[in-house]
Amino acid sequence: MTSSPLITQLIESLRCLPGVGPKSAQRMAYHLLERDRDGARRLAETLTTAAEQVGHCARCRTFTEAEICGICSDERRDASLLCVVESPADVQALEGAINYRGLYFVLMGHLSPLDGIGPEDIGLDRLVERFDGGDIHEIILATNPTVEGEATSHYIGELARERGIRATRLAHGIPLGGELEFVDGTTLSHAFLGRQSIE
Amino acid sequence: MTSSPLITQLIESLRCLPGVGPKSAQRMAYHLLERDRDGARRLAETLTTAAEQVGHCARCRTFTEAEICGICSDERRDASLLCVVESPADVQALEGAINYRGLYFVLMGHLSPLDGIGPEDIGLDRLVERFDGGDIHEIILATNPTVEGEATSHYIGELARERGIRATRLAHGIPLGGELEFVDGTTLSHAFLGRQSIE
Repeated sequence: MTSSPLITQLIESLRCLPGVGPKSAQRMAYHLLERDRDGARRLAETLTTAAEQVGHCARCRTFTEAEICGICSDERRDASLLCVVESPADVQALEGAINYRGLYFVLMGHLSPLDGIGPEDIGLDRLVERFDGGDIHEIILATNPTVEGEATSHYIGELARERGIRATRLAHGIPLGGELEFVDGTTLSHAFLGRQSIE
Repeated sequence: MTSSPLITQLIESLRCLPGVGPKSAQRMAYHLLERDRDGARRLAETLTTAAEQVGHCARCRTFTEAEICGICSDERRDASLLCVVESPADVQALEGAINYRGLYFVLMGHLSPLDGIGPEDIGLDRLVERFDGGDIHEIILATNPTVEGEATSHYIGELARERGIRATRLAHGIPLGGELEFVDGTTLSHAFLGRQSIE
């Protein structure tokens, strides 16, 4: 492709980034070489360090380089509330949007029997141990609103109820902003069925 | 932002890539950590190697890790034709699109007196040396169709003509595909003035 094997290799490696096709990879490679070699070196360093050192929190399974993540080790948070999400990015999204003071449990995926992903692969054995620990009064199920997410949610909800723990699910309904006209039918029907009285 | 300083740092470093904002940087960081740590390590390696080893071709100034790039050292190419472009990416674009068998000269920018970028900063001293070498019969000016690109082109064209070398410029006109209605006025007027008879 290019006259330099090293640049071809750099373009090829940049394609491991999600959403980066051949054109943007080429643009990125030339940009770094032309204008930001220091940035490239810094990126290389943090990539290496992160790939080596970031592991999973021993309590909630989110990404962290410590043994217990910052949220789990924060004494001021409410240990009786546990929000169950699919990925560390979901933790960030919730932390950024709401003033939630409970803890999280990160499944790092969802149940998917067809792909051979069972309860233990998403850490449910460890979650049940925490249920049995007796600290938790409510779990908030915040898996993705997909078929797999709903199924996972349902399964965990059962586990909680069997142990007398209250399980709640994020409300479904029309998202804020945009126009009703463009909201899909399934969401509309959820919003209709879940309508609330105005106070 | 995140509970892990290392991940925050990784997200920050990914933003040195062009077109990558906070959201995509976060998505990239989590993707690499969750699914492609080998890709992250490989990317780190090639970034480091490329940042250290890629320099400029001694003849045409394009990026290469060798002293003379693959195109300049290719004996089969026509050394009497020299195409002048602004960046190494332009060389790739032309090589990919047309069956050009001449050589290139890469300015690595354009004249921009306001930013203090004069003829020597874009290698015109070296270009004039090549003009005076006597090998070149025609230069093809393929700088960007911007004000600075046109000015640079004009300046180089003068240098060539003073030395009896033929200078040509890529044709301006309506691009292929799309609709005439959406072509801008300046382009349309160029296309109109440069109209060609049908044979």
